[in-house]
Amino acid sequence: MIIRDVIVTPIAFRDPPLLNVAGVHEPLALRSIVQVVVDGGVVGLGEGNGGAEFTEWLRRAVPAVIGKSVFDLNGIERAIDEALSFGADALARRDLRSVLAPIDVAAHDAQGKILGLPVSELLGGAVRRRVPYSAYLFYKWADHPDAGTGRIAGADEWGEATTPDGIVAQARALIDRYGFESIKLKAGVLPPDEEIAAIRALAEAFPGYPLRIDPNGAWTVETAERVAAEVGGLLEYLEDPVLGLDGMSQVRAATGLPLATNMCVVAFEQIPEAVRKDSVQIILGDHHYWGGLRHTRELGMVCETFGIGLSMHSNSHLGISFAAMTHLAAASPGLTYACDTHYPWNRGDDVIVPGALEIVGGSVAVPTGPGLGVELDEAALARQHRVYLDSGRRERDDAGYIRRFQPDFDPRLPRF
Amino acid sequence: MIIRDVIVTPIAFRDPPLLNVAGVHEPLALRSIVQVVVDGGVVGLGEGNGGAEFTEWLRRAVPAVIGKSVFDLNGIERAIDEALSFGADALARRDLRSVLAPIDVAAHDAQGKILGLPVSELLGGAVRRRVPYSAYLFYKWADHPDAGTGRIAGADEWGEATTPDGIVAQARALIDRYGFESIKLKAGVLPPDEEIAAIRALAEAFPGYPLRIDPNGAWTVETAERVAAEVGGLLEYLEDPVLGLDGMSQVRAATGLPLATNMCVVAFEQIPEAVRKDSVQIILGDHHYWGGLRHTRELGMVCETFGIGLSMHSNSHLGISFAAMTHLAAASPGLTYACDTHYPWNRGDDVIVPGALEIVGGSVAVPTGPGLGVELDEAALARQHRVYLDSGRRERDDAGYIRRFQPDFDPRLPRF
Repeated sequence: MIIRDVIVTPIAFRDPPLLNVAGVHEPLALRSIVQVVVDGGVVGLGEGNGGAEFTEWLRRAVPAVIGKSVFDLNGIERAIDEALSFGADALARRDLRSVLAPIDVAAHDAQGKILGLPVSELLGGAVRRRVPYSAYLFYKWADHPDAGTGRIAGADEWGEATTPDGIVAQARALIDRYGFESIKLKAGVLPPDEEIAAIRALAEAFPGYPLRIDPNGAWTVETAERVAAEVGGLLEYLEDPVLGLDGMSQVRAATGLPLATNMCVVAFEQIPEAVRKDSVQIILGDHHYWGGLRHTRELGMVCETFGIGLSMHSNSHLGISFAAMTHLAAASPGLTYACDTHYPWNRGDDVIVPGALEIVGGSVAVPTGPGLGVELDEAALARQHRVYLDSGRRERDDAGYIRRFQPDFDPRLPRF
Repeated sequence: MIIRDVIVTPIAFRDPPLLNVAGVHEPLALRSIVQVVVDGGVVGLGEGNGGAEFTEWLRRAVPAVIGKSVFDLNGIERAIDEALSFGADALARRDLRSVLAPIDVAAHDAQGKILGLPVSELLGGAVRRRVPYSAYLFYKWADHPDAGTGRIAGADEWGEATTPDGIVAQARALIDRYGFESIKLKAGVLPPDEEIAAIRALAEAFPGYPLRIDPNGAWTVETAERVAAEVGGLLEYLEDPVLGLDGMSQVRAATGLPLATNMCVVAFEQIPEAVRKDSVQIILGDHHYWGGLRHTRELGMVCETFGIGLSMHSNSHLGISFAAMTHLAAASPGLTYACDTHYPWNRGDDVIVPGALEIVGGSVAVPTGPGLGVELDEAALARQHRVYLDSGRRERDDAGYIRRFQPDFDPRLPRF
């Protein structure tokens, strides 16, 4: 049960031109794949943030983790903290948790493989056999501007979405294929009236579907109040309408709408002030932020204790994270909302053997095999690592990318 | 891994005449022993509250738990909740957690035995190899008044303690035998000036030892402030000086002393108000209150999030609970205080095979064998069950017992 090696592999994979407040997704998204190799040959899989700096953090953690029991999650956490939290390049606490996250996932996968138990059982048992996800809509361009040249992929199957009709068409396509029963619109991209129109169009096209809108803090408090007045009654929750706990608190007081966040509360240290100010009613737990599966389960108890709802945030990710999210959600009784996922946007370049995680009727069956229940496709991992190396890409830069085409793009918030 | 049977055995065991605000400990203390029998013959051990009513609650939970996977802690919890939270005899939420607790402990013990892992590893890994406990001092009579008659034990080895000198002698005896390095005085028994004198005598006799005093809410806010002014500087923390979150908040504001509790915050639902009012700075986690080992670990994260310290409360208990407390404390990074335990007072009638849990140098080595690392002594269990049956005792009644000898005893609080 002793960790003998940890293999960190940075990868890149195709990503559509999805628009957001920071700019637009580049043609390649970045992630890291972690393989924790345990005595006897069991290998646990984890997936974490991407890019050169994060990969370097992970690699600095490796010597600290080697020699630990794969069951000793406290010891692994402490070893990472000690290895990375001192000296000139010391990491902040939330960065330490992001490093721990994929290693924690890989440790759980290895534990499950050793014990013959699915990760959901290691987390206390699945309270649901299927985990519902939401259709995650984005304003998007039809193509990357460089499509068809060099290594940039050609037009994707989803087409352009820059109008209410385009957004409804995108929702229709996603729902036709995956059966999603709730909808989230990534917003903060167009002037608020256009996004209000999109919400109205979605409510009309999909009556009864829970709707969410997430402008990532692009709005002023006044704009958030106006949007709430116009379409608040159509929303399940309003996600990060404004930046910061004080602004969120003002919007909450003015509108009474439940506010969700993955921006102003992303670490345990931020919860007390959020509680004091009644800034957030739903926390979008993301095990990549919160230090892995175990601590995100604990976040669930913190939320339950303080009457805060729990939902789940997503960044561009592949199947190992999708499996981890599914096990975590299954074992979190308080997670009563459909989770976010980018999987439909990125699954084409996955590094796991296909078939383990299918979205049917808007939900994913919790894998019942040992560990995460997914298998690494070694050839696919090598392929996407090669894509990473060849691309020369090292960090995500949505703003730099959009400025190539819109030189006056200003990423500062609030914008509207 | 399926639970095939749950055997609930009420027991009684000798208890010295320990004085407290409620009266005096009766000659027999009551507990329940739970054996969770899993496919293949593995048996997990748990220990919980005692008495006829609690035993009945546990027995009502048994049919709900049978058939569950011993790893499905969420499913076990839900099944107990569903079985016991409806109808005319529905339990309150905190009573449900007390029923879950020994079953959760037994499930962890069974899991560990199946997997070959100590419970501390199932809880995330031991961050300490030894768990420190405090010398738990009580005002006490030399003998039960009926000593030597019928089934009542004769004078115990610890003698009388009703004066500062008596308390110091008791501390000396406990420390000589067990090496404790911190001291807790159960108080609220004598007029505050006498208890102040006892603290002063302990500070003089044991310089540098962390000291705590716990009057179980016997004092008014004014008395608490006076005690704090007199001996606050000698205390590591002041435990439950007054009843209720408002009173605790007042004492905190007036004295600045760290206040600990196992009375005004014993359930997750009470934490938000306690945080709002700054009523408690240390929660005395007790897995018998908080729903078992897993939820008490989660309590640790709630405490860490809100900057609340974590220590551990004890009631009269035997070795299975002592083992569970030790594994839990070992796997709780935030538990930085020595834990309370009644074990020295009650261990003579233990139902586990001796030797697994010795207090040396004030601490207990975390068992490293599978599960809790203790073995049931079937003959001892049968013997203490027989004591329970023969005694006719069904519920704890410290007040009724002291009234036999002090008919004017009034258990109402505050008293001083």
